Amino acid sequence: MLKLLGDERLDYLLGEDLRIIQSPSVFSFSLDAVLLSRFVYMPIQKGAIVDLCSGNGVIPLFLSRRTKGSIIGVEIQERLYSMACRSVEYNGLSDQISMVHGDLKKMPAVLGRSKFDVVTCNPPYFKTPGAEEKNLNEHYAIARHEIHCTLEDVIQASSQLLKQGGKAAFVHRPGRFLEIVELMRKYDLEPKRIQFVYPKKGKEANTLLIEGIKSGKPDLKVLPPLFVYENQNEYTEETRKILYGE
Amino acid sequence: MLKLLGDERLDYLLGEDLRIIQSPSVFSFSLDAVLLSRFVYMPIQKGAIVDLCSGNGVIPLFLSRRTKGSIIGVEIQERLYSMACRSVEYNGLSDQISMVHGDLKKMPAVLGRSKFDVVTCNPPYFKTPGAEEKNLNEHYAIARHEIHCTLEDVIQASSQLLKQGGKAAFVHRPGRFLEIVELMRKYDLEPKRIQFVYPKKGKEANTLLIEGIKSGKPDLKVLPPLFVYENQNEYTEETRKILYGE
Repeated sequence: MLKLLGDERLDYLLGEDLRIIQSPSVFSFSLDAVLLSRFVYMPIQKGAIVDLCSGNGVIPLFLSRRTKGSIIGVEIQERLYSMACRSVEYNGLSDQISMVHGDLKKMPAVLGRSKFDVVTCNPPYFKTPGAEEKNLNEHYAIARHEIHCTLEDVIQASSQLLKQGGKAAFVHRPGRFLEIVELMRKYDLEPKRIQFVYPKKGKEANTLLIEGIKSGKPDLKVLPPLFVYENQNEYTEETRKILYGE
Repeated sequence: MLKLLGDERLDYLLGEDLRIIQSPSVFSFSLDAVLLSRFVYMPIQKGAIVDLCSGNGVIPLFLSRRTKGSIIGVEIQERLYSMACRSVEYNGLSDQISMVHGDLKKMPAVLGRSKFDVVTCNPPYFKTPGAEEKNLNEHYAIARHEIHCTLEDVIQASSQLLKQGGKAAFVHRPGRFLEIVELMRKYDLEPKRIQFVYPKKGKEANTLLIEGIKSGKPDLKVLPPLFVYENQNEYTEETRKILYGE
């Protein structure tokens, strides 16, 4: 039986295909996580997949609709870890998705090095700010700011977890694009596919999707751009398809 | 009086605003050069601008419509240099545009270091291939392959020519994007604006426009994407505006 705590609610994912526990005071998944779930390469029949900074488990849940491989979600915040565990169970996905409560920096030691086919991560976007600027809600602050992990931690751990030829996919802000690319190369993840996401036509990109291959050869492809909103602030057909499976 | 040599012809630029000498057996400018001319930052009233790998002078000619600053075009091939000189004269732009026949690697010594506000370059896109793969037409081979200059030569010379805060803008293939970015940073040109150009909707980008600032602070903006063709292989309205000023 599902237990909802405090202001938690059970939201729909992908139309009525999946349900996910969210809480407005703790964490709600963003479109970026959904875009990453759709962007990343997925082995269809089998494979070992890890999602770091998993939050309430939105990426593992989405990925379960794209692969029969096993998926591990790693989350450092106990409250979010608990939400993710209950969502996995509610959806009957306990055989495919395991949640781990812990620090991503320890995962290569905990889960094993060079064992995974795919790593995904929707990390905190902002460098740790001064105390006064920090989001007062600790749950949100940890999700948004590099309090428990830096971008370099994420990329290093991803590389360590991956097999040779394995794929790491991240979502981030374009303003940190060059930093991501440099760190990926530093940790032997060669960027191979990028896609920029634009809020609407005529605007600058506000989101970057990037996938690299461990020990891959240089050859970058820039995928067609994705526009999130039409002029009327309605989702584009493409976004609706990604979000609702319409 | 205009002298046309061999199979040269006098083509229109920007509707009927400018004329340019082209030759199908030697060199014709590409859309990429035009896109770079429109993409690059231009000081309106004054400034010192250099265009490297200038070919038949298409970029200096275009830029003369965006700035009152002085423009120097550098071209290593004598035949193209001659075409550019005659086009500049024919358009009555000899006071604003000077062509230099020489090797871009020597330009910091010839033209002066840290003297320029803007450098543009539409360089050869391909690494030098084996003799058998090389384009048999020498003029085209030099324009397309890194025979006389590498990407690193271009970026190093650009940086040396620029003042602190000056801007360098390049057009290239997305497959070499990461290399460009690394070389720009190596030579103190911080990438600040990029734009990807897509042949049409749903296709991968085939052209990259990038601008950096000498000794600039990291903060990359990704401009709205540009689509060249509609589905019917006709130019999009945006491309027509850039090409013909319509």
